[in-house]
Amino acid sequence: MTDSGKAPIDFWFDFSSPYGYLMSEKIDAVAAKYGRKVKWHPVLLGVIFQATGSRPPVDGTSSKSHYMLRDFHRSARFMGVPYNPPSRFPLPTQNAARAYYWLHGQDCAQARQFAHATYRAFFVDDRDISSPDTVLDIAAGLGVDRAALAAGLQDPAIKARLKDECETAVSIGVFGSPHVIIDGEAFFGADRLPQIEQWLESGGF
Amino acid sequence: MTDSGKAPIDFWFDFSSPYGYLMSEKIDAVAAKYGRKVKWHPVLLGVIFQATGSRPPVDGTSSKSHYMLRDFHRSARFMGVPYNPPSRFPLPTQNAARAYYWLHGQDCAQARQFAHATYRAFFVDDRDISSPDTVLDIAAGLGVDRAALAAGLQDPAIKARLKDECETAVSIGVFGSPHVIIDGEAFFGADRLPQIEQWLESGGF
Repeated sequence: MTDSGKAPIDFWFDFSSPYGYLMSEKIDAVAAKYGRKVKWHPVLLGVIFQATGSRPPVDGTSSKSHYMLRDFHRSARFMGVPYNPPSRFPLPTQNAARAYYWLHGQDCAQARQFAHATYRAFFVDDRDISSPDTVLDIAAGLGVDRAALAAGLQDPAIKARLKDECETAVSIGVFGSPHVIIDGEAFFGADRLPQIEQWLESGGF
Repeated sequence: MTDSGKAPIDFWFDFSSPYGYLMSEKIDAVAAKYGRKVKWHPVLLGVIFQATGSRPPVDGTSSKSHYMLRDFHRSARFMGVPYNPPSRFPLPTQNAARAYYWLHGQDCAQARQFAHATYRAFFVDDRDISSPDTVLDIAAGLGVDRAALAAGLQDPAIKARLKDECETAVSIGVFGSPHVIIDGEAFFGADRLPQIEQWLESGGF
């Protein structure tokens, strides 16, 4: 199907978000079915929770936390996405997000590959994606110049870009991960994928 | 389809919960498809939130609150359920819940009819279901003896029953509305209906 000429769909997520990972495995194909492209925006949930006064849903002790850890895995099976519960969770993701934006400035297709590889490193292979070394290893595995990316992670412009993306997310009402926004209509959660597909098919409902 | 001989599915909800209402319109039919019955448990989200240290998701001001008010309506359209946003929301529901338990002691089919009528009174006809008079009117419309129910709403045994149900809910991990529990497996949210159906069909996945 050809590009519809419509604005891209926006996909807001944190690299430590299991439901963000589930959405990342589906959203491009669903969008493509309706001739739409997707613009990916990694952000930091910690910054968003602080700005919106929310608490992280998974604190390790509450009934909700216990439920969600189970639901992550069950939802992955339901959606047919490989998932192994990470041994360290959640993790800080500023290095992964900065790497994404640096790569996006060089080669946006490679940035997309890096995003998929990073999510799978965390949610399939239990790698510590908070570590700059892991982030550099993942990128190097895709043919990225490791030293150039290492410098990019320290670039004030890249740090500012991530900060800007987080501020934009908060300003447009993003309060968790994933948010998918289609022509101004927001869908929160991997479980909204059927509504997203219906919305794209019908232009609203 | 005949009864499978399996334990009933438990459906925990608050009469002021839009997603509980959406689930109430679907769960019996889905369960019946797989030979299962459903046991309904109205509870009070305020009590559950206090016990679990949660905050109500809809506070009228946050981005999440704004999103949810929109998502209630969109999810209703998506699921094909009539929905008009109530002008007073949320409402206290102890009278509706006590009426349910009193009716259930008399005639469980009538209690189920009352539950449907109460949810629709709130989410379709914008009636104030927190009011004892409205609750009595709804029940009287189904042929219930109004004076007997009015006395039932004040019965200490009925008040204790609702308190017990709320305590049981908290003790088994219910943290919001709706929760559907199938053979010990918990599903939170109206959006888990496709997973519920798959679970019933496959006996787990």
